[in-house]
Amino acid sequence: MKSIADLADGDRIDSQFLVNACTKGVTANSRSYLTISFQDATGTMDGKKWDVDPGDEEVFVPGNIVSVEAEVISNKNVLQMKVLSGASIAQEGIDFTRFVPSSPIPKEELVKKLEAYLASLHDGDVKKLTTYLLKKFYDRYLDYPAAVRNHHNFASGLLYHSLSMADDAEALCRLYPSLNRDILIAGCLIHDVGKTIELSGPVATKYTLEGKLLGHISIMQAEIKEAADVLKMQGEIPVLMQHMVLSHHNKPEFGSPMEPETREALALAMIDDFDAKMNILDKAYAGVNPGEWTQKVFAFDDRYFYQPFYNEKKE
Amino acid sequence: MKSIADLADGDRIDSQFLVNACTKGVTANSRSYLTISFQDATGTMDGKKWDVDPGDEEVFVPGNIVSVEAEVISNKNVLQMKVLSGASIAQEGIDFTRFVPSSPIPKEELVKKLEAYLASLHDGDVKKLTTYLLKKFYDRYLDYPAAVRNHHNFASGLLYHSLSMADDAEALCRLYPSLNRDILIAGCLIHDVGKTIELSGPVATKYTLEGKLLGHISIMQAEIKEAADVLKMQGEIPVLMQHMVLSHHNKPEFGSPMEPETREALALAMIDDFDAKMNILDKAYAGVNPGEWTQKVFAFDDRYFYQPFYNEKKE
Amino acid sequence: MKSIADLADGDRIDSQFLVNACTKGVTANSRSYLTISFQDATGTMDGKKWDVDPGDEEVFVPGNIVSVEAEVISNKNVLQMKVLSGASIAQEGIDFTRFVPSSPIPKEELVKKLEAYLASLHDGDVKKLTTYLLKKFYDRYLDYPAAVRNHHNFASGLLYHSLSMADDAEALCRLYPSLNRDILIAGCLIHDVGKTIELSGPVATKYTLEGKLLGHISIMQAEIKEAADVLKMQGEIPVLMQHMVLSHHNKPEFGSPMEPETREALALAMIDDFDAKMNILDKAYAGVNPGEWTQKVFAFDDRYFYQPFYNEKKE
Amino acid sequence: MKSIADLADGDRIDSQFLVNACTKGVTANSRSYLTISFQDATGTMDGKKWDVDPGDEEVFVPGNIVSVEAEVISNKNVLQMKVLSGASIAQEGIDFTRFVPSSPIPKEELVKKLEAYLASLHDGDVKKLTTYLLKKFYDRYLDYPAAVRNHHNFASGLLYHSLSMADDAEALCRLYPSLNRDILIAGCLIHDVGKTIELSGPVATKYTLEGKLLGHISIMQAEIKEAADVLKMQGEIPVLMQHMVLSHHNKPEFGSPMEPETREALALAMIDDFDAKMNILDKAYAGVNPGEWTQKVFAFDDRYFYQPFYNEKKE
Amino acid sequence: MKSIADLADGDRIDSQFLVNACTKGVTANSRSYLTISFQDATGTMDGKKWDVDPGDEEVFVPGNIVSVEAEVISNKNVLQMKVLSGASIAQEGIDFTRFVPSSPIPKEELVKKLEAYLASLHDGDVKKLTTYLLKKFYDRYLDYPAAVRNHHNFASGLLYHSLSMADDAEALCRLYPSLNRDILIAGCLIHDVGKTIELSGPVATKYTLEGKLLGHISIMQAEIKEAADVLKMQGEIPVLMQHMVLSHHNKPEFGSPMEPETREALALAMIDDFDAKMNILDKAYAGVNPGEWTQKVFAFDDRYFYQPFYNEKKE
Amino acid sequence: MKSIADLADGDRIDSQFLVNACTKGVTANSRSYLTISFQDATGTMDGKKWDVDPGDEEVFVPGNIVSVEAEVISNKNVLQMKVLSGASIAQEGIDFTRFVPSSPIPKEELVKKLEAYLASLHDGDVKKLTTYLLKKFYDRYLDYPAAVRNHHNFASGLLYHSLSMADDAEALCRLYPSLNRDILIAGCLIHDVGKTIELSGPVATKYTLEGKLLGHISIMQAEIKEAADVLKMQGEIPVLMQHMVLSHHNKPEFGSPMEPETREALALAMIDDFDAKMNILDKAYAGVNPGEWTQKVFAFDDRYFYQPFYNEKKE
Repeated sequence: MKSIADLADGDRIDSQFLVNACTKGVTANSRSYLTISFQDATGTMDGKKWDVDPGDEEVFVPGNIVSVEAEVISNKNVLQMKVLSGASIAQEGIDFTRFVPSSPIPKEELVKKLEAYLASLHDGDVKKLTTYLLKKFYDRYLDYPAAVRNHHNFASGLLYHSLSMADDAEALCRLYPSLNRDILIAGCLIHDVGKTIELSGPVATKYTLEGKLLGHISIMQAEIKEAADVLKMQGEIPVLMQHMVLSHHNKPEFGSPMEPETREALALAMIDDFDAKMNILDKAYAGVNPGEWTQKVFAFDDRYFYQPFYNEKKE
Repeated sequence: MKSIADLADGDRIDSQFLVNACTKGVTANSRSYLTISFQDATGTMDGKKWDVDPGDEEVFVPGNIVSVEAEVISNKNVLQMKVLSGASIAQEGIDFTRFVPSSPIPKEELVKKLEAYLASLHDGDVKKLTTYLLKKFYDRYLDYPAAVRNHHNFASGLLYHSLSMADDAEALCRLYPSLNRDILIAGCLIHDVGKTIELSGPVATKYTLEGKLLGHISIMQAEIKEAADVLKMQGEIPVLMQHMVLSHHNKPEFGSPMEPETREALALAMIDDFDAKMNILDKAYAGVNPGEWTQKVFAFDDRYFYQPFYNEKKE
Repeated sequence: MKSIADLADGDRIDSQFLVNACTKGVTANSRSYLTISFQDATGTMDGKKWDVDPGDEEVFVPGNIVSVEAEVISNKNVLQMKVLSGASIAQEGIDFTRFVPSSPIPKEELVKKLEAYLASLHDGDVKKLTTYLLKKFYDRYLDYPAAVRNHHNFASGLLYHSLSMADDAEALCRLYPSLNRDILIAGCLIHDVGKTIELSGPVATKYTLEGKLLGHISIMQAEIKEAADVLKMQGEIPVLMQHMVLSHHNKPEFGSPMEPETREALALAMIDDFDAKMNILDKAYAGVNPGEWTQKVFAFDDRYFYQPFYNEKKE
Repeated sequence: MKSIADLADGDRIDSQFLVNACTKGVTANSRSYLTISFQDATGTMDGKKWDVDPGDEEVFVPGNIVSVEAEVISNKNVLQMKVLSGASIAQEGIDFTRFVPSSPIPKEELVKKLEAYLASLHDGDVKKLTTYLLKKFYDRYLDYPAAVRNHHNFASGLLYHSLSMADDAEALCRLYPSLNRDILIAGCLIHDVGKTIELSGPVATKYTLEGKLLGHISIMQAEIKEAADVLKMQGEIPVLMQHMVLSHHNKPEFGSPMEPETREALALAMIDDFDAKMNILDKAYAGVNPGEWTQKVFAFDDRYFYQPFYNEKKE
Repeated sequence: MKSIADLADGDRIDSQFLVNACTKGVTANSRSYLTISFQDATGTMDGKKWDVDPGDEEVFVPGNIVSVEAEVISNKNVLQMKVLSGASIAQEGIDFTRFVPSSPIPKEELVKKLEAYLASLHDGDVKKLTTYLLKKFYDRYLDYPAAVRNHHNFASGLLYHSLSMADDAEALCRLYPSLNRDILIAGCLIHDVGKTIELSGPVATKYTLEGKLLGHISIMQAEIKEAADVLKMQGEIPVLMQHMVLSHHNKPEFGSPMEPETREALALAMIDDFDAKMNILDKAYAGVNPGEWTQKVFAFDDRYFYQPFYNEKKE
Repeated sequence: MKSIADLADGDRIDSQFLVNACTKGVTANSRSYLTISFQDATGTMDGKKWDVDPGDEEVFVPGNIVSVEAEVISNKNVLQMKVLSGASIAQEGIDFTRFVPSSPIPKEELVKKLEAYLASLHDGDVKKLTTYLLKKFYDRYLDYPAAVRNHHNFASGLLYHSLSMADDAEALCRLYPSLNRDILIAGCLIHDVGKTIELSGPVATKYTLEGKLLGHISIMQAEIKEAADVLKMQGEIPVLMQHMVLSHHNKPEFGSPMEPETREALALAMIDDFDAKMNILDKAYAGVNPGEWTQKVFAFDDRYFYQPFYNEKKE
């Protein structure tokens, strides 16, 4: 059974995919058709079903896994499925992770690394607060993507991104000894935990009501405040942790109500930006040969990026 | 004993004032002098003490009331005190409200009005949450100014501003029936309660550490979240109240991490803006005669405002 | 005869509509088709005529009322007419108001209210100038919409919007006694009269040459200037009225060559903004159920608005 | 009697100057002093009078010519007068032009050139409207400066600037034949006539009430509208002339409520910008030697400009 | 053989065109079709080939001249070719200039004018440097367009634009004697020479790798630097010429790393802007009748321009 | 002999300092005085000489080392010297490095590290080009500061900053294997070499003419281009290196004519930003105790930064 990433112009397939979205249109001669977004662990592809059968809309339900017969055709250099037929299948027992892009590093390894970072924290308040917050949202924290679309949008992407940032922080603290390692590592681990409330989950990820009305930054800041009260923690650590979360998008226009006002808050915001951008470029460069340019990259104001020949051997 | 607002060029005074600030400078001939900012309920005035006596710095302590002998002189059209001598006085028992601008409406009346508004709320969740939050910060809420400098910067200014907005909301709800009165009134009452944590108090008001690192908007949003948990309140009301607080500065560049996404959140932001601006203009127009212009008004990008002759009879 | 607002997927209709626009396209197999925008008092709907008959372009003339046979179909969740045939009908004697959205309050009531406001003005110059200007454009002022598309885009929308603002002004003058009621009410009534020259009329509203090259703000300012000369009016009132009109969009980037420099000019701009935004939200929320979100709202930078459950009973 | 431009460090003078402004200050030892801005046809210089005599404030009245004894001293590389004494002189009969920078070209020549341009207009409406407007404000148009401070701020500067732009227009119309010469020349002549109402006059120039509340752009647009009505002129010429005036600052943020929407309106705005900038640079480069830099130039965001050696022979 | 500019709805043609671009799409019934952009000296037109024959993609190769049979049809008021068949023809010996818009002035005349300008330069360094740089890129300089799309996008457009600017400079130097003619004329001639490296050539013009990664401004600045070293030229002329090139887009947001800091650099930037805008308007106004408006003009933020009746006689 | 960093209010000193700047002013009683900026390796301090002796201006020459007798006094919390006398001393043989802040790491160590990085480059073109460029400016590259004022403004600051960035790059390349180490390290080493032409030198650093008119970014890009021609280097490496230099300020508004379009160019810009900001904060935090705030930091839009108590042990 071919994966989406393997499909080529002319393929005839009989496969299972996750339905992301489905909308009905009308052709020039007033016949209905469906546009369906399919997904598996390797990517997404749009399909068209030109002849809509009576039960089709009950089959192509967003969030469901369906069985699909289709031809793959190329339209303006983009592959597309011409769906011949679709069928519902029993949803129970399906391993959904087969249909969601997975982390490049196995979840178990990520969890081990996370626990090691937690164990490495020396400062009592920092350690207590960080541990309390991660444990409160532990299951979601291990499974959620880091974003709906932008970067690290795969299962455990949130954890992957948080640990990647912690690695950066560890390396930079060695080079810039005036950085406080404990609070910076803690900031890397918790800065995006609010996404477990902002987003609906790892499959067919959407924004929740809280997500749309409050945003993950304010959600998480309030969680830290409440956690400090629950833990009866005094002193500046809870305030500084709240500040790091509030300011980690760096500028008001990027969603941060405060700009960084400590060295570690600034470092956190810059590390977050760096790690997200590197991941965005990984995605943009995927499949781009030396001497070619990427598609427009949304996160860079629709700029194109060039793939130099010096990367020839690597990719 | 003359008030600051009554002083004129040439006056010789022996009076008591609150010290707002005090800095030491050096003259061309290397003699030290002090620049002191004095305040009473009617205004502020800078003073210079050219001959610094040994104990002077212990006398002119910011936040203290001091006894001052001085001459009033005019410097570039601005009155200034030439301080001849200053003396410490016992601080206990001093009625500090004499030295802080007071609300145009007595605090007791404001409190009555507040209680009436609270009693008028119908929606159970809205009423419970609003009451809980106001009571938690009740004493400060009744005494604090609404800002350090910008608008409603007088004792009980926060309460005055909140009620003035509630009056606006009441009137507008009658004209725009699609506005939900309960949540809008509640929003007016609680939107700035975070200032009781952001600011140090009604006298010699400064920003606290929480104020500088978190800001009153995020502080209050976290309080609402925690209050809802304490009250075990479910449903959308706590989320919507948090959203109103988060978005009441309307735009990211004015400190709001979210922009208004409900009709009432939008109305709240616009009413807040209107009430603040009217108060800023009251202050800017004070003492400006018909046909004259105000000083530059900081809150309006240093624009000048004109006092028309049609206001002649009024002022 | 069904109204546009009542149409549903699958309806077969034989009805009369106003033609807003008509463009010709070509299908993949090189056959011509027409895309026509239809309108009646309850809304607008696009139609497609796939087989173009010789005389069709003489039938679907923008600004005309036509007789239409069509099927209603749903395309990407948007209803659309598949036009089977269209026929010209005699235009004389048609009651065009049947095809234009009408004011929620009958025109007669609005006129009465207008006259009452005019009668209530005390200041001689303000009253004389306001009356002169409104009478000069009286018929259009009573019939025009307030905008082509954005807000209050219905017959008498200009009058409706002006009076709604006057109501706001009346209420706010009571709450803020430093506001001058006369000039503010006058400003509400005349601020948008320039739209009677900027726009073509209440049906199939377009911009005129003056509208495109000068804009309603400058058009109206020049009218006030000329009116003052005709009335041989001296003093600051004509200048202040011109200033209010020039500054009522508040910022250069919104079309105002001057920013408000009197209290009443500022209040006028803020009231205008509030009334327009409330009307825009009324339109955006129409038909949106509690728990749902509006479509993107253009006037709010394509933001979505949430319909809370507390509005359940009302709508 | 030395002119301001000729003064040097150490000079002892007894001369007459126009007083631009006068403010009172207080020294460290509480003695009053005056800061006075003096002007003659060659420039401006600040003076300090350290010992204020009783009648001094009646002498140094802004707008008056006074007799001054002073020493010239250098303060932070800027020359300044130490005023020893000042005396009132009879103002009647004084030739004020001696105290105001004059046009590099005599007024008579400018007037001749203006009349030639008027005579050269072919289009009937353009000629009639332009002539009417210039004659209405003729005396002021011949005497006023083009600005308070920025560019062409000398007697007849408005006329000088208008004709300089007309020269540019004449040359460019030959190079770009698609430009309509008549309306462009007319635009150059009338675009800034509103300044005769916006500004107080050629001596000690200030903004008038109309100037501050309406601005010269809107003032002039209204004059054109009224002129067209007086002349009973129909057709698009008056509208296009209004449009040119409204759009000649090119962008809303520079004060234009409309952006240019005809080729000639665009050309007018660009020619105005070019002529103003060349004049600003003439002033900035005055006295700057090759290899040196100008002071910060306000109109260019405080940029410095370099004087190349290739200009050595010229200056 | 009809030119593209002469084609009308309903024409049946058998002609030769340059292929600019070709993309494959799929129709609703899953049949492939091609969208081809055709060009000749008079303009461009899109075509659709609905039935794709096996060899079609080898025929419609971008950059090739092809023989085309087609019907011309109107789609949403835009003409389009319905391509019936296409055939390859031998490319050798084809006169490509027949398929590329040509300069309104013959290349030979432009070259003569260029040589005259070069001969007219007096300053030794300016002349030597300018001549060296133009000769180094001479052939391309004579043939290249000034841009891919925006302005002067025709063969020899670069030269045409450079000379047009030189004409402007010559005229303005006469009106503003403080401008240095030599360096300004030189700046006009060389400012865009970097486009000969930034762009691929006069036919089917695209950006090169250097063009995309460095831009014509930096490319040319480096060429001047190297030329000065090759010519062993000392002194400020090479630095000033580099500065003129670096700053000729005036503002960082338009691609200039430096803002103009000499009078001539400023004049160059303004002349460049004026000449480009006049050319853009020539293109936008082409075929627009008096009383009509142009299409949206991209270079003016999608503004529309009005064609006045005073241009009736001319066009 | 006390260093500037050791001076305290009330000190009486007899010491040697570098003169950074000297300006003459006039006191209220018209006596001249000098304001002199003094510097040594530990910092800078302003001094006033109230009684100007005839030869003083020949003594306090910017760039010279002078002998100074002075009293240290505190003015508005800032220390200042009251200069009693100053004397010229012989400049030859003076070790200027004693008067310029020095690198925290000895120059010799930095040079060793630099050579190691150069030796570690594998790619032939990258190594050849980088080595050529560094050797061409070697002496200056080892001695120059990285900026006049902003960051790393000490002797060898340019080298220190370049190597610090290389260390960051080395660490990040290990964490992000898709980054090309060679070109990124090379970019770190050469990105700011243009500052050796932009700035005047390590003592009393100013901008040169090239610096002001071209900027270090364009200067260096042209050097790479010329170097590649001298080395007859083909291929994309020289273009990519130029691109990295052009884009290393990331955005046009920060001086980069191109935005990063390769992964390494982006990483370079972000690493440069990070290293500069960490150094700016080191300077801002110097001497700030836990619980206190820094002064306004210019590079962060005048934001204040907080010194947390968790840094108590460290500083």
